[in-house]
Amino acid sequence: MALRAALRNKSGLSSLLSQRSSCHSHGRVCLSPVLVAQRRNNSTSPKIKVDFDQSTGVAVMQMQSPPVNSLSLDFLTEFCIGVEKLEMDKSCRGLIITSNQPKVFSAGLDIMEMYGKSPERCGEFWRAVQEMWLKLYSSNLVTIAAINGSSPAGGCLMSITCDYRIMADNPRYSIGLNETQLGIVAPFWFKDTMTNTVGHRTTEIALELGLLYNPSEALKIGLVDQLVPEDQVLTTATQTMAKWLAIPDHARQITKSMMRKPTIDKLTSNREADIQNFVSFITKDSIQKSLRMYLEMLKKRKG
Amino acid sequence: MALRAALRNKSGLSSLLSQRSSCHSHGRVCLSPVLVAQRRNNSTSPKIKVDFDQSTGVAVMQMQSPPVNSLSLDFLTEFCIGVEKLEMDKSCRGLIITSNQPKVFSAGLDIMEMYGKSPERCGEFWRAVQEMWLKLYSSNLVTIAAINGSSPAGGCLMSITCDYRIMADNPRYSIGLNETQLGIVAPFWFKDTMTNTVGHRTTEIALELGLLYNPSEALKIGLVDQLVPEDQVLTTATQTMAKWLAIPDHARQITKSMMRKPTIDKLTSNREADIQNFVSFITKDSIQKSLRMYLEMLKKRKG
Amino acid sequence: MALRAALRNKSGLSSLLSQRSSCHSHGRVCLSPVLVAQRRNNSTSPKIKVDFDQSTGVAVMQMQSPPVNSLSLDFLTEFCIGVEKLEMDKSCRGLIITSNQPKVFSAGLDIMEMYGKSPERCGEFWRAVQEMWLKLYSSNLVTIAAINGSSPAGGCLMSITCDYRIMADNPRYSIGLNETQLGIVAPFWFKDTMTNTVGHRTTEIALELGLLYNPSEALKIGLVDQLVPEDQVLTTATQTMAKWLAIPDHARQITKSMMRKPTIDKLTSNREADIQNFVSFITKDSIQKSLRMYLEMLKKRKG
Repeated sequence: MALRAALRNKSGLSSLLSQRSSCHSHGRVCLSPVLVAQRRNNSTSPKIKVDFDQSTGVAVMQMQSPPVNSLSLDFLTEFCIGVEKLEMDKSCRGLIITSNQPKVFSAGLDIMEMYGKSPERCGEFWRAVQEMWLKLYSSNLVTIAAINGSSPAGGCLMSITCDYRIMADNPRYSIGLNETQLGIVAPFWFKDTMTNTVGHRTTEIALELGLLYNPSEALKIGLVDQLVPEDQVLTTATQTMAKWLAIPDHARQITKSMMRKPTIDKLTSNREADIQNFVSFITKDSIQKSLRMYLEMLKKRKG
Repeated sequence: MALRAALRNKSGLSSLLSQRSSCHSHGRVCLSPVLVAQRRNNSTSPKIKVDFDQSTGVAVMQMQSPPVNSLSLDFLTEFCIGVEKLEMDKSCRGLIITSNQPKVFSAGLDIMEMYGKSPERCGEFWRAVQEMWLKLYSSNLVTIAAINGSSPAGGCLMSITCDYRIMADNPRYSIGLNETQLGIVAPFWFKDTMTNTVGHRTTEIALELGLLYNPSEALKIGLVDQLVPEDQVLTTATQTMAKWLAIPDHARQITKSMMRKPTIDKLTSNREADIQNFVSFITKDSIQKSLRMYLEMLKKRKG
Repeated sequence: MALRAALRNKSGLSSLLSQRSSCHSHGRVCLSPVLVAQRRNNSTSPKIKVDFDQSTGVAVMQMQSPPVNSLSLDFLTEFCIGVEKLEMDKSCRGLIITSNQPKVFSAGLDIMEMYGKSPERCGEFWRAVQEMWLKLYSSNLVTIAAINGSSPAGGCLMSITCDYRIMADNPRYSIGLNETQLGIVAPFWFKDTMTNTVGHRTTEIALELGLLYNPSEALKIGLVDQLVPEDQVLTTATQTMAKWLAIPDHARQITKSMMRKPTIDKLTSNREADIQNFVSFITKDSIQKSLRMYLEMLKKRKG
């Protein structure tokens, strides 16, 4: 489905291929999901590293799924289990999410989970995407995204579920819900989370055009809360977390739930329909054909 | 109903009369609808000129109903037919709306459609206003308003239904939903469109005070997206259109619909009630009496 | 319930005690409600002074309940009666709310109304808080808050119900819904009013962290509309009122109601449940125990 965008964007594409699939803001289209597929390694090494500091109550989750922390079914499953464990640990109060992959926070949904898969498998994948969003957006923990690289599509979604977003002030990085540029559509709960973050009009133009914003643009529209030099993203996140933890948990949690519950309820009460909707779209012959041509083209270019 | 505003604003009124009814931002009250009535010409020459460039897929609609492109029943009917034709033409993907009348984009609803008319006729008029909004706000085309003059009330409404707004950077022009200043009330779907564009608080203050904004103010609150010198409005609109058309239509259209559907549904499911509401308000003796006195006063001043 | 915040904030607390309980932005926690209790005088002198100028149609309400205009049941009752009288007086069109206590507009809800009281009494108090909000948020009058001092919690709520907010440009003053900092939660209608004023994301972060903003921060996020030197707050309010009164009342009132009705309906249709919710929270042993310890600590410090 990224075909049209890809064809329009050949230079971006070849630079991606030559630069080991980091996610660019130049071409303004993130194609990395497919590249992930090319490089996928099937090792069972953990895709997420969790460091929990009992003394502070703060856990740091480092996404470490090369090359671009694509959100595959395996990744999402591991991620959700990780969040759930922390959520159930009474001594854990805060969660910082970051990446240990260079130049990218997360490139978003893994396109290989959508190509040549059975409807059942596609449904399973989509349920995992929903689960990740539900877990993060309704988390009782203070959640801070330490965005130390590009964060398109699903990576942006993950970021805007957090309570606070700190981004590396590197103009080569970008963040946004760019699905439309790839010919697909951000589902309503992506849209709702974005609207809750940057308002209706900015969301409308961002989603219609599939805009990716560089850090200063993202700060200006409120898509991120703070920019810091790249090497200070994690330390700033830790300092910010301390301020958030100064607030009584119970009052903060009820307040957070009050702000987010209507948005969460919309998905929980439409979850199966949303899965059906995704599956019937993605398994369309036309969509699958586009995906195949796209992957073949990539192979040729690589060859 | 514009009586009180008019009486309060005599200088604005006489300058309007002496300057051939262009729409002013000085007095901050647009009185042109009545003046239109004075100068109305009943020719059946087209009120809208459509240029469709098959090679780009972009149509330009020029409003050409002297002197101020007032939205009469005839105008609205012609406008809606024009939009519908383009909408049904598969080769048309984008629509630029502009004016070829000097100093004004559109002065809004034609007050003469509301004075001395039967309830049936008033209802027919209001249905046409609704239709114009429904057509534009739900259009599958990329719609860009090339606002090359003042754009009060219904002219502002027309602008904010578009996907993007480019305004001439001329401080004498103004834009806004100024109904309250004239003693009338913007209906809920005007209000909803405004809220979707500039947010709840800005809409509240804008509508309670009937504010008209000059171009830089309008840009600041997000009522328009871009200012350019007056002679570049149309070329900028054309260049901007090209960027929007780089996005796959299908994905953009679904996204646009997702953003706007709840607002559209509110009117479609309350359309008859909204018409009844308008008709019973406008046909009130007190309102009609105000209109008559207002028109008589204008005649005297002219005489 | 303010215990944790208080213990965390000893310096702020002692400075409050030594400075006659004015409301500080330094410590960023407003503890004055309890101090009010310490100094409460049970005289039946009016807590609100109303000056109504028949010639302009504008009433000025000065809150004069020492030391910090805490919103006690008596205060709220008197306040609501005052507003209702003006509302019913056809010659009254505008209401300016201000304080004649030094350094504070209003410190918010009186904590003594929540400590050691019967469930019935707590319910009565909460109904009065609801009533104040309902009266102000749905007022047919033009309402302007002349914020000439700090305005935390309930004081902020009172301000954001108004049509327009003018604040003294004194960096020592602050405004915000800081309930979370005290371990309590702003109810949904506080949250809704805040969202209508500054948008969803700003409200989320403000309420989760219980933020108090200094005047320039408050202006930046749109929590207040205008800053003026302290001695010009009231005169500016009067001048601004004249502009608002230039708008025909009827059109402005319908417009205001259209903007606010959904928010008001949410409380009116959930009023009893909201009272039950408050009473069951505030009469919890754990909450009452925290209050007692807090008050005892204050006594010791005073002694």
